[in-house]
Amino acid sequence: MRLVEYVRPDIRAMAGYTPGEQPRGGGKIIKLNTNENPYPPSPCVIETIREALTGDLLRKYPDPLGTQFREVAGRVLQVDPDGIVIGNGSDDILTILTRAFVPAGGTVLSLTPSYLLYRTLADLQGARLVTVPFGEGWSVPATLPKGHLLYLANPNSPSGTTLDTETLLARASCPVVVDEAYGDFADYNALQLARSGRVIVTRSLSKSYALAGMRFGFAVTTPELARELNKVKDSYNCDVLSLVAATAALEDQQHMLVCRERIRQTRARLEQALVECGFRVTPSQANFVWAQHDRPVRPIYEELKRRGLLVRYMVYEGYGEGLRISVGTPQEMEEFLAELRLVLAGVL
Amino acid sequence: MRLVEYVRPDIRAMAGYTPGEQPRGGGKIIKLNTNENPYPPSPCVIETIREALTGDLLRKYPDPLGTQFREVAGRVLQVDPDGIVIGNGSDDILTILTRAFVPAGGTVLSLTPSYLLYRTLADLQGARLVTVPFGEGWSVPATLPKGHLLYLANPNSPSGTTLDTETLLARASCPVVVDEAYGDFADYNALQLARSGRVIVTRSLSKSYALAGMRFGFAVTTPELARELNKVKDSYNCDVLSLVAATAALEDQQHMLVCRERIRQTRARLEQALVECGFRVTPSQANFVWAQHDRPVRPIYEELKRRGLLVRYMVYEGYGEGLRISVGTPQEMEEFLAELRLVLAGVL
Repeated sequence: MRLVEYVRPDIRAMAGYTPGEQPRGGGKIIKLNTNENPYPPSPCVIETIREALTGDLLRKYPDPLGTQFREVAGRVLQVDPDGIVIGNGSDDILTILTRAFVPAGGTVLSLTPSYLLYRTLADLQGARLVTVPFGEGWSVPATLPKGHLLYLANPNSPSGTTLDTETLLARASCPVVVDEAYGDFADYNALQLARSGRVIVTRSLSKSYALAGMRFGFAVTTPELARELNKVKDSYNCDVLSLVAATAALEDQQHMLVCRERIRQTRARLEQALVECGFRVTPSQANFVWAQHDRPVRPIYEELKRRGLLVRYMVYEGYGEGLRISVGTPQEMEEFLAELRLVLAGVL
Repeated sequence: MRLVEYVRPDIRAMAGYTPGEQPRGGGKIIKLNTNENPYPPSPCVIETIREALTGDLLRKYPDPLGTQFREVAGRVLQVDPDGIVIGNGSDDILTILTRAFVPAGGTVLSLTPSYLLYRTLADLQGARLVTVPFGEGWSVPATLPKGHLLYLANPNSPSGTTLDTETLLARASCPVVVDEAYGDFADYNALQLARSGRVIVTRSLSKSYALAGMRFGFAVTTPELARELNKVKDSYNCDVLSLVAATAALEDQQHMLVCRERIRQTRARLEQALVECGFRVTPSQANFVWAQHDRPVRPIYEELKRRGLLVRYMVYEGYGEGLRISVGTPQEMEEFLAELRLVLAGVL
């Protein structure tokens, strides 16, 4: 028997999660498909990594608990450092949470349409994902089924909307993870609920801190739950350079807030321009915009791609399709909109 | 109910894996407890990271499949790049393999005494670990029970021994993972068996390439199995700097081979000196030595630690205890042995 035939049937049946395309090399590309920050990270981050680049630090294991990072993050976010769990990206944290709370054969809950990774996480755990459609206007559904863990992306992808977490909590009968990968771009976050142990908040440094390449995320919860989650994570899940980078990034709040503000301003202009192009645009609290159209958008996506403009085409069963467009620099947006208008004139 | 009360009972019952101590700051320490390389990584590695330190690379997601790394590793190891799976340390690869092959309620097999993480991996998966004692002289056991996956650390920790993988394969009825974290220090490896799809080999860059701080490892298997394992891994499990570091490290074989040779020579001298101190020493194929004594070794370990010399004290149920001592630089070994002789004179 070949090795592959011993793989768990659940896994073999999976299609696998497809991340947004990452073009390599050649040709001018405007990349608006994976919600990266269009601005580089804080210069302090690069300087700090440079200083940490010694043979002695690289050859030794990193601090498994990221003590220094947790102290800084605790101070910046006003949370208990012992309630912070470090992750190799917030996707790593989501894996840890799924494994900690959901038994094989168990149930993961998520609203829909939302982050597609939740299904992958459930599949890998041998659990099932039960999705519940959002209420009218991306609001809390009237009722929620039972399950072992509920994932709420807030702001949500692809809609960019936030919902009232208190109302959701009142209707949920299991632990709730508020996935705040895009939290820094929003007017609201659930840190207060995390502090009081009512939800678990997850954060990413990929978006607001412009560190997608460094893979760093974390959970904010109670110290007693953090102790359990630390059992589930790989001991050394964060490397020494990502730890110093993340610490420096959080130290430089000013840099993050300036970039955040620019992105929010560009977002407002992008929304307006897309509406003028005939799209239905959901007001966004994230660093991307969800744009739908009365006509099929797949040909628009394809034609944009042919012209070197990458956006994310998404289709959700029973819901429909749309384009999720990351907010770039003002100049990228101008070039994008100019091409989009040409495409719309030709395709539609 | 508090969040922690919803955590899977399997997890709550776990003690969690305890990695070797990583002292932070103050005081002179000779660190011989986690098998780090005493020599820094190749200067090319540091130079390559420095060149990759641009805001544009850090803000973008890395290549999820590590294409460039796999091409170089494939060439250096003479294996198919499509059969290589990249990991955030080889522990990440072991997690991926456990999740791919072992269902909840399933069975993980390992020989004993061996790497303690195998039990943690089984516990996390809701599976049980069945351990089989090595045969006489750290050889293949006469029979092996049924299971879903067998982990063989080869060279083994704590013994530093290698065994005949062909014989083990003939007696195993499930897929075999040959964990070659220490493979570069040994006279033998199982790459040929991996090429032909008879075992899965895992490798780490923490030991022979002196990159424990960077967290990078990989699996060598068949392309068809690699496709399944890639479904299980986090899409972006390796960050952009660890990818370029790992690629540069494998490119500079000369550096690795020179350090390897030094370590093997120092190892031989350490073994000899420990025997002269009255220890029973298992001839090692790794970058550490397993030393046992007729007297209890715990007080020796404690006293060494008090003097700033960290080694690993290990005790295995039904087997006994010993000290696992990493091979350092010749000067570190001299200082260590001088202190050890003092301790032995006082304690025993």
